[in-house]
Parts: sequence; C-alpha cells; structure tokens
Amino acid sequence: MVSTTIKFALFSALTLLSLQAVVSVTPLHFQHPLDPLTKEEYSLVQKIVLHKYPKVAFHYIGLDDPEKDAILKWESFKPSVITIPRKVSVIAIINGQSHEILIDLRLKSIVSDTIYTGNGFPTLSVDEQTIAIELPLKYPPFIASVQKRGLNLSEVICSTFTMGWFGEEKSTRTARLDCFMKETTVNIYVRPITGITIVVDLGLMKIVEYHDRNVEEVPTAENTEYQLSKQSPPFGPKQHSLASHQPQGPGFQINGHSVSWANWKFHIGFDARAGVIISLASIYDLEKHKSRRVLYKGYISELFVPYQDPTEEFYFKTFFDAGEYGFGLSTVSLIPNRDCPPNAQFIDTYIHSADGTPILLKNAICVFEQYNSIMWRHTETGIPNEFIEESRTEVNLIVRSVVTVGNYDNIVDWEFKASGSIKPATKTKSSQLDISFV
Amino acid sequence: MVSTTIKFALFSALTLLSLQAVVSVTPLHFQHPLDPLTKEEYSLVQKIVLHKYPKVAFHYIGLDDPEKDAILKWESFKPSVITIPRKVSVIAIINGQSHEILIDLRLKSIVSDTIYTGNGFPTLSVDEQTIAIELPLKYPPFIASVQKRGLNLSEVICSTFTMGWFGEEKSTRTARLDCFMKETTVNIYVRPITGITIVVDLGLMKIVEYHDRNVEEVPTAENTEYQLSKQSPPFGPKQHSLASHQPQGPGFQINGHSVSWANWKFHIGFDARAGVIISLASIYDLEKHKSRRVLYKGYISELFVPYQDPTEEFYFKTFFDAGEYGFGLSTVSLIPNRDCPPNAQFIDTYIHSADGTPILLKNAICVFEQYNSIMWRHTETGIPNEFIEESRTEVNLIVRSVVTVGNYDNIVDWEFKASGSIKPATKTKSSQLDISFV
Repeated sequence: MVSTTIKFALFSALTLLSLQAVVSVTPLHFQHPLDPLTKEEYSLVQKIVLHKYPKVAFHYIGLDDPEKDAILKWESFKPSVITIPRKVSVIAIINGQSHEILIDLRLKSIVSDTIYTGNGFPTLSVDEQTIAIELPLKYPPFIASVQKRGLNLSEVICSTFTMGWFGEEKSTRTARLDCFMKETTVNIYVRPITGITIVVDLGLMKIVEYHDRNVEEVPTAENTEYQLSKQSPPFGPKQHSLASHQPQGPGFQINGHSVSWANWKFHIGFDARAGVIISLASIYDLEKHKSRRVLYKGYISELFVPYQDPTEEFYFKTFFDAGEYGFGLSTVSLIPNRDCPPNAQFIDTYIHSADGTPILLKNAICVFEQYNSIMWRHTETGIPNEFIEESRTEVNLIVRSVVTVGNYDNIVDWEFKASGSIKPATKTKSSQLDISFV
Repeated sequence: MVSTTIKFALFSALTLLSLQAVVSVTPLHFQHPLDPLTKEEYSLVQKIVLHKYPKVAFHYIGLDDPEKDAILKWESFKPSVITIPRKVSVIAIINGQSHEILIDLRLKSIVSDTIYTGNGFPTLSVDEQTIAIELPLKYPPFIASVQKRGLNLSEVICSTFTMGWFGEEKSTRTARLDCFMKETTVNIYVRPITGITIVVDLGLMKIVEYHDRNVEEVPTAENTEYQLSKQSPPFGPKQHSLASHQPQGPGFQINGHSVSWANWKFHIGFDARAGVIISLASIYDLEKHKSRRVLYKGYISELFVPYQDPTEEFYFKTFFDAGEYGFGLSTVSLIPNRDCPPNAQFIDTYIHSADGTPILLKNAICVFEQYNSIMWRHTETGIPNEFIEESRTEVNLIVRSVVTVGNYDNIVDWEFKASGSIKPATKTKSSQLDISFV
C-alpha cells in the first residue's frame, strides 16, 4: 500500500511548475530582539564557554527570551537601536555534569553558571548519537549476534532510542540502540534486527547492557522502496502540473524574521529545542485603528509518542520528540517546489553541533499563500423579488517547517487567516502512518 | 465580528484572477444509467402524471436507481445502447394524499401508484413555501401584532420552518412561520420579530394556530451588512491575487457526468433530495491491471440540526435539511472564481417546481484540482554517508456544491486523492456560525 501510494504521486511531484525563483533569506545580524541566534552569535557563545571550560558538550544553545514587558515596550516604540539585553541560554555537559549557563552577548561574559542535579537530562546531541550508533559494530557480543543470524555486519546500521522513565529513583543518561539492515534498501526501518537489547551509557559512551534474547528473521524490504529514482514501471497516473500564479507578486513581505501579510504582522523565531516559534502575532483592527495582539508566543511544546506496547521491544518507546531530540535540531531542509509550492519564500537558520559550532540549515522554513476554499458565502433566496449572492474566497498564509525524528516526518504548519484566526497543525508522515493534528 | 470578517475578505475575492474561461456543460441526453433526469425527462414525467391527475403538487421527482447488479454489468461491458430501464420515482400530493408513483420513461407510463399512509410527509416544495410565507401579511391578528410593535408591515418577511415530531399519535403537514424585518437590511435573520407563534397547515394552506405571546424589541441590523457593494471604508487589507496555473490544461476530464482524473473514475449524479451523488468511484490498480471499486454510491444522507433549546421560540427547530427541504432543491448556483477557483469546470443540472416544470440550475456543481500540501515525504539522516530526501506534492480533485437552507450555506466537498482515498467534507457558513465536518 505504501509503495503504491508513493508510485501514484511520482508524476505529480515531478511536473510541479516553478513559476518563481526560490528566494532565500540568510539573516546575518539580528534586527528584532526575538530573532534566533546568528552564526556570529553562536560562535561568540562557543568562544565564551570554551574560554572557561576546555571540554564542553553543548546540548542546547538558544536565545534567553527577554522579559515580555521589555519586548512589548520595544514593539510599541521600535527604537532604532535595540537596548534590550541579548542573552543566551546554554545547557552543556562538562565533566559529566549538566550545566545551565547564561551568557550576556553584549557583555561577552557568563552571567550565571549552575550545575543542575534534578531529574531529567539534556537533549541528545546529533554528535553523541553518531558516536553511539557505531559502538555495537565493534562490540564482540553484538558481532556474534549478527553472525548467528547470518547477517552481513557491514550492512548493519543502528539508531538511538531514548528510554523513558519508569519510576527509577536514580537514572543515568542512557539510550537504547535498535539496529537495522540497510542491505537492499534505504528504508531501514522495515528491516529491524529484533530480539536484541542494547543499552548505551551516553556519559561513559559504552554499552552497559546487552541481551540477545531470541533470533528472529529480518523482514525483507520488498515493495518498500520509496526513492523516486529507484522506481520502475508501471508508474502511477500522470497528473498535470498545477502552480500558483501571483501576477502582483506575493501578498506578504519578509523583513529579516518579521512577516507582514494582509492584516497580520508576526515574527518567526527558531530554537534548537522548539523549532519554529511564532511571536507577537497581531492583526490590525480597522475600527480601532490599531493592532490587536493575538498571540505572544506559540510553538509546539512537545510531541509525546508513547507506543504503549508492553513487550521488551517497545515498552521503552515513550519519545519526547521535542525535549529528547529537539524539534529545531531535527528540522530538515525543505525541498523547494515539493515541500512548499513554487510561490513560497524560504528562510535559512542556524543550529549548532555538540562542540558549539554553528551549522547552517538551508530552507528551514517556508512562507507561502495558499487558496483554501470559501471564507464565507451566502445566497439569500428568502426575500421576494430580491436575489442576493455573496462569496469571499479564502487565501491563507502558511508558515511551514518539517521536523524529522527517525522515520517520522512531522509537517508543522502555522496557518494565518485574514478572518483573524491562526490554525497550527502538524501532519505526521512515515512509512507506516499518516496522522493529522489540527 | 461577522462584519469585520466580511470586510477583511473583500479585496481577496475581488482580485481573484480568471485565467481560464468558465466552462459549462449542459447535459441534454442521458449517457449513463445514473445520469440525473434531463429537462426532457422532467417534462415527460410531468406530462405522464398530469395525464392521469389534473391537479398535482410534485414534491419529489428523481431517478429510480436501477439494480446494482445491472449497473455493474453495464459498467463492465459499456454497450453502445443502454438497455437498463429508465425509471423515475415521483412523490406527489394529490387531493391531500401522498402518492408514490413509479414511471417507466421508455414505456412512457405509470408502473405503480400507491397512496402512502405511514408516518412522515413529503419534502416541502419551494412553491408552497412561497405561498405560505405570504399568509401572515393578510392575517388580521398578525397585522395587529405588527402594529402593536410599531413595525412597518411592508417591511415584514416570513420564512417557513419545519416543526419536528414530538410523539404525536397523528400529525398533520404543518410548518411554523418566523417573521423578520427586512427594513434596512437583506440580512433578515438578524432582525427576528419574536414572541409570536404562527402555525400553517400546508394542506389547507391557512394559519391554524396563532399566539402573540410577548412583545420584544426587534434587533437592529447595525454592523451586519454583508453585501460587498454596500460596504464603505475602512476596507480590509488588500490581498494580492492568487490563481492556479495549469499550462497543460486541467488534469481531469468530464464526459457528460463521468469524470476521470489521475487514477480515479467516477460519476456525478444529482437528486432533488440528496443533492450531489458520487457513484461508481474506482481507482485503477496498477499491479492488477484493472479498476478497483471504492464507492458504489455516496451522498449526504441527512443534515440534522436539532437546536436543543426548550423555549417556545426554538424547541421545534429540529431540521432535517435533506429530508424536509431537499439538499438538491436547496443547492444554489456557484459563483465562478469565488465559490470555485478559476481552474474549475462547472456542471449544470435540473430541479423541478411543484407543478413538475424543469428548472435549470446553472453551475450547480464544480470540479477542480487543488494543491493540498505534502502527500508523503521523508528525509533520511540515519544512514552514515548517505543523504536521502524525497517529497511528493499532493494535488487533489474536488467536486463542490453549495446547499443553502435558510441562513446556512453548506459547502459540500468530495475530495479525491491520488493515494486512493475519498474525503467528503461539509463546511457550514452562516451569519453566526462556522462549522466543519470532515
């Protein structure tokens, strides 16, 4: 079924027209106190922290939100020079301890540095996961398990899975590894090597628990190829191209990270943990001749995925996609003309590696207008000798990003309507599922 | 709020581009055994029934569905001549009795004619409602009530409301009338004349119950004007035009009432009671090299609107919009470029008046392709040294009609997806409400 779905859509995607060139905005300097950290700011943070500690694993670097009062005051007066402090919150593991470090970028110094000893651990970094997933490949018991199953070790690939919390008094920063066969496929999730429990201590960066419980056959990847270039006939039906046409150009403007469209103004922020953040969304009230605040700050606070299957293979799967993997860290580059229509504009942003180095994330966010049915209509036939018909077309503004955690691609849309409402929605696509939350 | 909403959208609707001329298909002869009745067929039915009975109130005239087996057999072989009988079901009130009449159009004769004596009554006809709503205007007690309220009788307009069933052993075919002031507005529903109970017997066509319970002030229409031409500044924000562009032309074909698009084939029927009917929807199965049936017949069977307010003014409001008013009879002409985007094609159809005369309903249905986000995507970052990203754009086919009952405009969309699913949805717009059912 999945294979069929994919094939049907091939030509639709291929023939989508590009009427407008891809417009990309790389912010260099912050212009708004809620702008995400720039490349230079990430580098400065890295330098300041490494000056104090020689060995640091950066698990989170992000803007420390200024006080709401200060932001609202700034927004009212928009002084040419921003005097609001620019502070950065850092969560780092240093000598096995979780540090919460606050940095003032104007002062170029650490304002506070405390060691966190409560429950919970920092978000996983991509870098530590990259190291962890290599451990089984050199771990003799795992190599033996692979051989016992008659599998080719060079085709084995592992992946990090957070483990949840089941009431332990004291827990350590561990993750489970599940492994897959990439032989014959890039759709690795359909070829799990089951029956093995591997637990890695991410602090020690070693396997601390290992059980080969039972040998089960690895499923084949037959009929699960999803790559366009690997498809062979029969292809699905050819769909004609469809693109949006805006002869007056786009109806929205992006200035740095500030967007204005129709009666709306808002700011698009980005955070390693939260992903896209919509701030200071306001509509212009025609009758009162002033803006009306609708949303101060909005983001997907968490995506909790409890599998609720009590078996050894699944019981621990209680993922917090934002808190454990980072919605920002897991945001992927959007594919122009496919993930977003040809009339979209894109915004780049920066995330960071575990050593604090800024990483450019091209096309992290796209903004576009979309036709969406009828906003309001009425045909009045109840008044003798009068015929009234009225209809207003609905065109909305969408702010889109895609957050991919493992085999789940979460499409996060913030839809702005000229009628005054905001509709956030996430759609989850995977090889197995198609879920919508509106 | 409503007023503001409407103003905001004015320019959006005005500036919608027309890239393609409006294409309209008026079916003259039926080509498919499920085609709705043609103008000629309605006239033939009228002639046949009036030949037997001189005075007939036609409350329903519609295709009597051929047997499913016969349809499926016809669909498999598609003979050049349709040999399936063409029968028409008529519900008419003749001498105060409800007749169920079955007509064979090929034989040009009545096959059966039975008098129905069970519970329930035929759908209201537009014509009898038109007569009923005039009754209060010549009814002295009502005229006195209007004068007592200091209202201008020439600005009073009434409307028919079905009354529900509350366990009565024997009920007659009655309706309540609620009246409104059209003075200063066409948005009559905001100016109800409350405190009066009027019951009309539709058979006798006279007022059989009347109470002036209490005098209440009629609300003003201030800030509820919805007509575009009556708006004055300040206008809402100017939105840029947005239209779909299909350089290869539409990706769907309409042949009579049969539609083919992508992997789908289906038939669009129309019925005075049911409105749009989707039949014989099938997708082509690439692997089995044959069509797979998905839906034999689909339509909105009922829209039940129980107000659930026990007061005298509202308790009886338990509307069956399809059964009591007719979803087909209440279907309104779509406004090109507003109710449907510029890339839509339209289908006309026929309904009938109470004397059996066919009435052309222009642009009753529209069909168009619409961009709808991402069908499926995946970015795979879990395989070392490989980067995979795939995304398929979703373009769907929409079959739209609008059914207006009183102040409620129900947008009925049948959305076909190339992935193999059909998503029917109704959205209800009124001066007070905005409701979606998906």
